[in-house]
Amino acid sequence: MAAASSNTRYGKRDDSLLVCLESGNTISGKFTNNSFKSAPVLIAQEHLKKAIGGKSVLMINAGNANAGTGKQGHKDAMDCCKSVASLLEVPVSSVMPFSTGVIGEPLKTSNYIYAFKNAFQELKANNWLKASKSILTTDTKPKLLSREIKCGTKIVKITGFAKGSGMIRPDFATLLSFVFVEAKINKSLLKAIHTEALSESFERITVDGDTSPNDSSVLVASGGAALKIDEGTQNEKKVRKAILEIYQQLAKQLIQDAEGATKEVSIKVFLAKNVEQAKSVAFTVAESPLVKTALFGNDANWGRILSAVGRAKGIDDVSKVAIDLNGTPLVKNGNLDPKHNESKASKAIKKKQLTINIKLGTGKNSYSVMTSDFSEDYLLINSDYRS
Amino acid sequence: MAAASSNTRYGKRDDSLLVCLESGNTISGKFTNNSFKSAPVLIAQEHLKKAIGGKSVLMINAGNANAGTGKQGHKDAMDCCKSVASLLEVPVSSVMPFSTGVIGEPLKTSNYIYAFKNAFQELKANNWLKASKSILTTDTKPKLLSREIKCGTKIVKITGFAKGSGMIRPDFATLLSFVFVEAKINKSLLKAIHTEALSESFERITVDGDTSPNDSSVLVASGGAALKIDEGTQNEKKVRKAILEIYQQLAKQLIQDAEGATKEVSIKVFLAKNVEQAKSVAFTVAESPLVKTALFGNDANWGRILSAVGRAKGIDDVSKVAIDLNGTPLVKNGNLDPKHNESKASKAIKKKQLTINIKLGTGKNSYSVMTSDFSEDYLLINSDYRS
Repeated sequence: MAAASSNTRYGKRDDSLLVCLESGNTISGKFTNNSFKSAPVLIAQEHLKKAIGGKSVLMINAGNANAGTGKQGHKDAMDCCKSVASLLEVPVSSVMPFSTGVIGEPLKTSNYIYAFKNAFQELKANNWLKASKSILTTDTKPKLLSREIKCGTKIVKITGFAKGSGMIRPDFATLLSFVFVEAKINKSLLKAIHTEALSESFERITVDGDTSPNDSSVLVASGGAALKIDEGTQNEKKVRKAILEIYQQLAKQLIQDAEGATKEVSIKVFLAKNVEQAKSVAFTVAESPLVKTALFGNDANWGRILSAVGRAKGIDDVSKVAIDLNGTPLVKNGNLDPKHNESKASKAIKKKQLTINIKLGTGKNSYSVMTSDFSEDYLLINSDYRS
Repeated sequence: MAAASSNTRYGKRDDSLLVCLESGNTISGKFTNNSFKSAPVLIAQEHLKKAIGGKSVLMINAGNANAGTGKQGHKDAMDCCKSVASLLEVPVSSVMPFSTGVIGEPLKTSNYIYAFKNAFQELKANNWLKASKSILTTDTKPKLLSREIKCGTKIVKITGFAKGSGMIRPDFATLLSFVFVEAKINKSLLKAIHTEALSESFERITVDGDTSPNDSSVLVASGGAALKIDEGTQNEKKVRKAILEIYQQLAKQLIQDAEGATKEVSIKVFLAKNVEQAKSVAFTVAESPLVKTALFGNDANWGRILSAVGRAKGIDDVSKVAIDLNGTPLVKNGNLDPKHNESKASKAIKKKQLTINIKLGTGKNSYSVMTSDFSEDYLLINSDYRS
């Protein structure tokens, strides 16, 4: 892998990354659910379908999202793919493009092609930190994690990096994540592991409920001579667990670096009729502007939390609802908890790390999400002019 | 009608209102969809079911929402009802209670009973302005409207007042609205007119998507010797239209006085497959924090608007979407409109009154909502401590 600078939005900072994958790799890609999709997302989806395990390349640029740019945007992304394909002597469909940055601006294609050429000259031993920094936009720090698992006598290394949620100038909490497992894993198993890991990590964080045309997540099994991980084995269990932990940690790092965040907040919903009900309550509370502003204001405002619960889809009765904040009682049976103590609640909410536990009393299912508060900085960051 | 002071949250300001309705009246009441409901909402719903057109009373207090207050809250509201019922010599079920204010605090029942007694002494000619002021919490101005319609040789007067959306200390955009038609209208027709009027007015405004345990809307036909309005007549048409206009104007006044609002924004969705699709797009755009902060920042950020459209429920394709701002082109066929001109768009968004027109290109249906922007004041107001 190697990164170089396109000398566009970020001056001389590296913003163009190539990650080369040797033959025998398998790739799982998941993309934004927004029906407004950037050109690179559409192309990467197409190319992934054609992937047959040959040498392939992840081509990532920061600074320009290449979204809402129409036919020209599609051509620009393809031109970059073609250039990289010819450098590495692979079919164009073996290049997967990923972009993050400002929406609706034409891509300075020749600048990025030049950067990718420079990166190509430097392809050598992996420099993960450099790679993780090159994809950032307005994140305040890189998000990078690595761990090694012992599988019998062999070691499997898993490394992941991500960007997202600090969005001073680009327009969205655009989330890119790349996780690499140094093992052989067949495509269907890899997809299953990826889907599971995302559903327990990036799909459980929300900053403001807005989604992006560029969100992409890639899980790669590097293949080659590495250990083969088979379904149903002890090794699979270990690797699956480690991958999940990497994703969860990356998701946590995103929330900690969310725009303007002053708190790291877990919303945990218990005793729900079904998972859908728990999920709907968790997201409604996590995305309520009144809850988020109260969290920022250090106001343990249980009335706002209970009201968000009460308007969540799938809730028609709050009479069994109990809520506590880091264990400090707030609500019982849908009303102020008799054990509620304003000064204790006031003290509890001043912590940086908060857990709001919500028990619905309608069943046995749970769901949790992580979120941040709505601070003055969130407002200032996002009302700042785009360019 | 008459108002008096409970001498609680607002000192000597009137905060307790009685509106007496003579025999022959009909009443339609609509209440919050939040399943967390205040004690007065539960009681008013119950009492309305029993209403048989005898003398009745609307009893309204501001400053305390009496929500989340459990059995004691219910008893407190009933004690107020009983006291007012005995003053006016009517059954308890003829008194409909409405409250707005802080959630979760015990009602200072004796103070409010004292205030209602004082108000009772003053019951005389209607003072609408005084009434409309007495129900305010943190609204910056009263919302009051009146108009007269000629029905043949007779005049029908319609008067309405409302409160809501300025919420410095109370916890929600609690909305109360009371509209009085000086005519005889049977209950089922009145209900139909009310439902229609709300669906075209208060149900089409949103400040932050959060709802309250106290929202109540009452439409009264005062009955008595007044002109009878029958279904299917020319008079019904006129009255129905005038009532709708009153509701729409009150809704507009609420948006103009929304917390921290610097803009009055209409989101109009056209050419949708069905009304549900249009509605989902309108509300998703209106409630997107990224769109709302961009509006406050005078940033004609079409990428954020298009992304909100793209994530709305019922949208799986944005390739035919066109967006303009007060007629200034932004998006065409799901991409930047070739006619887009940044400096014109920049100028357009600086206006106080904005209309974002969104054409989906998937059918012939439309829906529109009104909203406000997310300003620094919104944040400061709502992160301020509750009490």
